[in-house]
Amino acid sequence: MSDPDLEPVGPRPSVRITYCTQCRWLLRASWLASELLTTFSTDLGDVVLRPGTGGVFTVEIDGELVWDRKADGGFPDLAPLKRLVRDRAAPGRSLGHTDRHRPAGEGGGA
Amino acid sequence: MSDPDLEPVGPRPSVRITYCTQCRWLLRASWLASELLTTFSTDLGDVVLRPGTGGVFTVEIDGELVWDRKADGGFPDLAPLKRLVRDRAAPGRSLGHTDRHRPAGEGGGA
Repeated sequence: MSDPDLEPVGPRPSVRITYCTQCRWLLRASWLASELLTTFSTDLGDVVLRPGTGGVFTVEIDGELVWDRKADGGFPDLAPLKRLVRDRAAPGRSLGHTDRHRPAGEGGGA
Repeated sequence: MSDPDLEPVGPRPSVRITYCTQCRWLLRASWLASELLTTFSTDLGDVVLRPGTGGVFTVEIDGELVWDRKADGGFPDLAPLKRLVRDRAAPGRSLGHTDRHRPAGEGGGA
């Protein structure tokens, strides 16, 4: 059933979300994971949910830190995170309204 | 804030759920991931959600295939899956009612 033509070229990026279990951030982490997998599907290699402690909430793409709650002051909002992933997983692909409503200072909620 | 005493000894298992995007099984896969992370938290290294095609739905623990929809005829039910993970992530740990209600022929729904 799988159509080799649909297979994206080259290794597909891996997104890893590390979240604090003490702060009960699993739901936020699994929400972001599902949103990214819904949008990018097989353009992504996988999305990893990693439990941590001590207030951690980070997002890495292929090992590169793209969001750190402590450094970036809060949680990544979905739209900027989708653009970060799109730029690696499917460069040039339009995200529709997510691209049109790019706020001046790109950031996330506290 | 993290308490080294709570850190589990030895490498923590990684669970990987590969699901078919064409069959829209992301929600089932992310549900299982969240349930396992809720139950086992930092006893797990991570849970990986991997999009695939062609009717795939598999669960691996540290690379070992423990459930394959095509071979096992359906989806893993939560209780048997939790027992499989517990036996690797936290051997000896009680799963409460999940242990008490172990059906005769352990299996999953179609």
